[in-house]
Amino acid sequence: METFKVIRIKGTDREIIEDLVVEEVPLTLNIGDKELVTLLCMPSDLEDLVAGFLFTSGLIKKIQDIKKIVINRKQWVARIDLATADIEMVFKRLYTSGCGRGTLFYNAADIINRIKITSDFKIEPVKINALMLDFQKKSEIYLKTGGVHSAALADTSGILIFAEDIGRHNAIDKVIGHGLKRDISFENKIMITSGRVSSEVLLKTQKCKIPVIISRSAPTNQAIKHASDAGITLVGFARGSRLNIYSAEERIS
Amino acid sequence: METFKVIRIKGTDREIIEDLVVEEVPLTLNIGDKELVTLLCMPSDLEDLVAGFLFTSGLIKKIQDIKKIVINRKQWVARIDLATADIEMVFKRLYTSGCGRGTLFYNAADIINRIKITSDFKIEPVKINALMLDFQKKSEIYLKTGGVHSAALADTSGILIFAEDIGRHNAIDKVIGHGLKRDISFENKIMITSGRVSSEVLLKTQKCKIPVIISRSAPTNQAIKHASDAGITLVGFARGSRLNIYSAEERIS
Repeated sequence: METFKVIRIKGTDREIIEDLVVEEVPLTLNIGDKELVTLLCMPSDLEDLVAGFLFTSGLIKKIQDIKKIVINRKQWVARIDLATADIEMVFKRLYTSGCGRGTLFYNAADIINRIKITSDFKIEPVKINALMLDFQKKSEIYLKTGGVHSAALADTSGILIFAEDIGRHNAIDKVIGHGLKRDISFENKIMITSGRVSSEVLLKTQKCKIPVIISRSAPTNQAIKHASDAGITLVGFARGSRLNIYSAEERIS
Repeated sequence: METFKVIRIKGTDREIIEDLVVEEVPLTLNIGDKELVTLLCMPSDLEDLVAGFLFTSGLIKKIQDIKKIVINRKQWVARIDLATADIEMVFKRLYTSGCGRGTLFYNAADIINRIKITSDFKIEPVKINALMLDFQKKSEIYLKTGGVHSAALADTSGILIFAEDIGRHNAIDKVIGHGLKRDISFENKIMITSGRVSSEVLLKTQKCKIPVIISRSAPTNQAIKHASDAGITLVGFARGSRLNIYSAEERIS
């Protein structure tokens, strides 16, 4: 976080205050010497972000495919050494059908769509309420700056991994990257997100075979359709004692 | 909007309701026969979105560079015919230093950064309060689905252009695309956004020489720095009779 001098106006009052603002950096991912992508992100948990991004984008199959990640925090470059010799193949996966926002995930979508979630994991609504309360309490930077999204991996006993970022996709990638690093089984876990659930968000969690995704916000129609097809439980507007179930309701008992 | 059957839980009550959900489509932009990018977006104002995206990404210099945009709403493809013969150059602009989220704008950033905003446009806080109230009233889909961002172009007399999308960048691109089409001068206007102001958002408005950007939400540190350097007035947390001024305060009189 960085402090800025801000003029705060309320009605006709005008005062100069010091305010905390969330940090943003452009992190460029290089595989070997080749530039892959630049992520605009908050400069925390950057190794987790890189690992999660590579995995959810389908560029690596498992965490062991990464030999080393070195983050240069002066130039904001992540240098990635992969275990595979076939780096050209990784780039081909990225570039084949155009590039930029969205495409990445739609390239991977054909494969991901075949993943059916059959986990018999179950959770009670009252436990979801408790998890969401805990989730909000953990959102420290949000409370101070109002500028970030949060994501968390949880089970019925509580939150296991928590991350924040200026982008809702990045926060989810950080959580997934951390989970991969710790070799956590995703198949009996819940992904919690502060942000809206679009098809991209859903594909990321589907890739990890996470059976339940819970959001404080709204889903899109495509996210609901993907979730129904894949057997993923999608919960939205989880606030206070309320929640909406959009698909695979049998897991909310 | 699409209607879905939803299980709504409140405490121990469980009921099945019909709920409206925002639509998401993957719109692939083709220049001639060549695929450029896929945008995940709401299927409204798609021509404006395409024009705005091409402009704010630095792929076209003016609206006249576009000869034709044809939207195929079955396959969700936008076929773009450019006036320039040098389509390779357009792709080169996109691909030179990697591709994907963020990079696009950082490629363009060097050039955009040289744009200094010297407009002597001024607006009173009380007028900003009124604009924000009007802005919220216009956010119909948000009120129904809770799932979208809004953006608007305004002057001191009121809102001129308004657009919604599942992505805050898309909503801004739609407004800018519409403004370009109508040949509106941006230099004495305000951009209003429901979303957070990151450096990407700021670069988009800077490209149009819009002197004031106002958000209901928070800015990032990079957005504040860019705004200060470029002489753009950045206002955040504009809610009710409150607002925070982060840069170029002389325009808020």
